Amino acid sequence: MPGIPYQEIKPPQRILLGPGPSNVHPHVQQAMMAPVLGHMDPYFYTIMEDTMSLLRYLFRTENKLTFPISATGSAGMEAGLCNFLEPGDVAVIANNGFFADRMINIALRCGAEVIQLDAEWGRIIEPEAIEAALKSRKKVKLLALVHAETSTGVLQPLTEAAQLAKQHEALFLVDAVTSLGGHELAVDDWGVDICYSCSQKCLSCPPGLSPITVSQKAMDTIPNRSHAIPSYYLDLSLLSTYWIRDKGQRAYHHTAPACMFYALHEALALVAEEGLEARIQRHARHGAALQAGLEAIGLTMHVPPGYRLNTLTTVHIPDGIDDARIRQRLLSDYSIEIGGGLGTLKGKVWRIGLMGYASTEQNVLLILSALEKLLAEEGYKTETGAGIKAAVQSLRK
Amino acid sequence: MPGIPYQEIKPPQRILLGPGPSNVHPHVQQAMMAPVLGHMDPYFYTIMEDTMSLLRYLFRTENKLTFPISATGSAGMEAGLCNFLEPGDVAVIANNGFFADRMINIALRCGAEVIQLDAEWGRIIEPEAIEAALKSRKKVKLLALVHAETSTGVLQPLTEAAQLAKQHEALFLVDAVTSLGGHELAVDDWGVDICYSCSQKCLSCPPGLSPITVSQKAMDTIPNRSHAIPSYYLDLSLLSTYWIRDKGQRAYHHTAPACMFYALHEALALVAEEGLEARIQRHARHGAALQAGLEAIGLTMHVPPGYRLNTLTTVHIPDGIDDARIRQRLLSDYSIEIGGGLGTLKGKVWRIGLMGYASTEQNVLLILSALEKLLAEEGYKTETGAGIKAAVQSLRK
Repeated sequence: MPGIPYQEIKPPQRILLGPGPSNVHPHVQQAMMAPVLGHMDPYFYTIMEDTMSLLRYLFRTENKLTFPISATGSAGMEAGLCNFLEPGDVAVIANNGFFADRMINIALRCGAEVIQLDAEWGRIIEPEAIEAALKSRKKVKLLALVHAETSTGVLQPLTEAAQLAKQHEALFLVDAVTSLGGHELAVDDWGVDICYSCSQKCLSCPPGLSPITVSQKAMDTIPNRSHAIPSYYLDLSLLSTYWIRDKGQRAYHHTAPACMFYALHEALALVAEEGLEARIQRHARHGAALQAGLEAIGLTMHVPPGYRLNTLTTVHIPDGIDDARIRQRLLSDYSIEIGGGLGTLKGKVWRIGLMGYASTEQNVLLILSALEKLLAEEGYKTETGAGIKAAVQSLRK
Repeated sequence: MPGIPYQEIKPPQRILLGPGPSNVHPHVQQAMMAPVLGHMDPYFYTIMEDTMSLLRYLFRTENKLTFPISATGSAGMEAGLCNFLEPGDVAVIANNGFFADRMINIALRCGAEVIQLDAEWGRIIEPEAIEAALKSRKKVKLLALVHAETSTGVLQPLTEAAQLAKQHEALFLVDAVTSLGGHELAVDDWGVDICYSCSQKCLSCPPGLSPITVSQKAMDTIPNRSHAIPSYYLDLSLLSTYWIRDKGQRAYHHTAPACMFYALHEALALVAEEGLEARIQRHARHGAALQAGLEAIGLTMHVPPGYRLNTLTTVHIPDGIDDARIRQRLLSDYSIEIGGGLGTLKGKVWRIGLMGYASTEQNVLLILSALEKLLAEEGYKTETGAGIKAAVQSLRK
């Protein structure tokens, strides 16, 4: 068409070792080629039923309300907050990373009063701080923590927090965007009321969906709201009338993104085939090897031992090394994407993800070799091969 | 995995002649197989730039803010309303169909006072009613109409309404979910301020995205809001910092659904190759043939002549004919999906779509033959072949 500039799209094949999306499993991408069905087609309902069963397995929950939101992870976060918070409510929310900050932003938009749990970016929220915040008001409606903070690489312990929330009769919300399918997470056993994730990290599905699970206890608070839920699209009660058959009937809510549902179904089936426990172990093995290798190169981790994610590693950029230049060369010379720092960590850390299909020995060895070589070329002093050696030793354990 | 019931998904190939999704063009589905890129990948930005140019062509606008929302059409509707309405605002909104009703629902969630423009489902909103409503308050913030009502099959004239909105200094919002790429629509020439659509109807892309365009005049009202925009995910000012480069920079907002972006890009390129005018003519030709055929079978249209959509036809279900049974047999015997009635039209009309890739002569002839045969088998009296004859005559015009 003359006058409209556009190209035939031919995206390069990247090795996606950033904070997500991760590389998509070929079976998952293939699944999107299945013919589109109408959102009220009887066959389509069977795919939805499967998806809910598989998600319950992943979240380790029996929550009836367990399905994907038809939008990306940030919409899952918004759904998790806007159905439960309204003007007059008090929420206690972590303030130790970019996504914790986003939760605060959304809770404020909901009109809630927010008590922030401050910690440095790269540290966990301590149970004492949670307890003090929960005690500081007569009634806290909701406690919200990020399980795996994609901006800092911190793994937040959850069991004590869950007990504290229960004790203070607050709903417990957990952001599991970077942990579902890659770190241990037990929604029912731990007592999490609201938990959401995304499709494009440890599940290795393209971005576009946000699995969420909500306890009946949390859903039962909705009829007591004084204000309407601000979002129609993310109204969980309405979404439930589509996802959950009631007296044999389902109601139309929105036109389901069929190809994305196919992709997620296949991605979840692959997790089930691998086994959730085996998959978590795989992420742990490769995350540890990467971290051992980076330390052997002489780099320092941003997060103290014991609180590091297996799925995403934050490592300090050495003095004198140009952040953007290294990332640009990884992209141009090796077609590898890693992440830069977000927010207060901009220019200070790299974020290296090993998630889902991309959490492989090959990728551990490749990123360590490539990084070591590029750093050496930029004048950084390191013993050639030290990273690989340490990683291999870690993998042999 | 033992204990988790799921199947290998093998969706049947349907001929999608319902209210959407329509059949996806094979090139569009193929485009989703391109490798996923990170949402900050330089190559990815070029795809986004293309997509904005192509959407401007389709919407016939020069609005800078023209991009897809990363969720389905209902989210586009919500974005179009929640950025511009807040408590204290007055909105004048059509009340003549299921999707008009959804706009009212969302506007009320935004806290706006809504003046409803009542009309029967199947009739347009008359300019006199619009004018009276706009005059009834000192200040109306927004007028909202549905261009092509998917529930009733009505094409709403827009030019007079646009003039009235301008005269009364109200923003003019148009729902173009079932018209973009299938009916004439000229955002800038007509004076539409906010217009959104979806990916899965006349564009023949899978569901999952919602193109939107917003005038600078509308965007300029946002800084004057007293309340925060309730949604983070649909906050157009934030989304603009990702979509629209500012001083060479883009800000991360959410993880873009890459495969859906590829699909939309290809779908838009196919519209540009066909030419927008030719595509609209194609929809007109096939819509008219279908309607001529249905009338020759003896069925009656729900919408008066002159206000019928070319993209979606609503036809009365004859007395004594079982709605669900005919639709079920179309699905099982012919793998054809058509839509039942929504809301007040449930059980009263069928909705037959001819959109995008599915708007073909073959589909006109097929649905007329299949429907005629099934109706005859159910005891409905009609002259065999009458529908086809009338459709062919219409196509020859």
